[in-house]
Amino acid sequence: MKYAAHINIMPHKALLDPQGKAVTGSMPNIGLPTIANVRIGKHITLELEAANETEAKAIVETACTKLLANLIMESYEYTVVAI
Amino acid sequence: MKYAAHINIMPHKALLDPQGKAVTGSMPNIGLPTIANVRIGKHITLELEAANETEAKAIVETACTKLLANLIMESYEYTVVAI
Repeated sequence: MKYAAHINIMPHKALLDPQGKAVTGSMPNIGLPTIANVRIGKHITLELEAANETEAKAIVETACTKLLANLIMESYEYTVVAI
Repeated sequence: MKYAAHINIMPHKALLDPQGKAVTGSMPNIGLPTIANVRIGKHITLELEAANETEAKAIVETACTKLLANLIMESYEYTVVAI
């Protein structure tokens, strides 16, 4: 079966996110001073073939830990749906 | 009230996503040849103050169009929840 995965990879809460910090600092300049605490990570979508949802999740898990996320600095979460 | 927004910004489907293409090509090397069509965008979380959910959505919409997303190359979607 074919599955689609949606993965969010974010910098750990304890870590400084310089990109997010810069964007937070720019918000008053576009008239939105109430926006705070911007954090920027990655959103990844992919498709895969797997026998069932458990196998699909295992494949996504492997992809995240081995390639997509840097576990020292980032955490990940994902959803897998059949398509 | 305080709201949290989760924003996904992805390259348009019609556009080539070189970063996603490179990652797709690497998947067989880590033993996951069934993964295809990887696309990589941004996941942004932020907090904001607004009187109600409608105003919160309007603020996020402005942030996306004016600063966060490049509408020529990217599309965005978001959810806003009270915290």
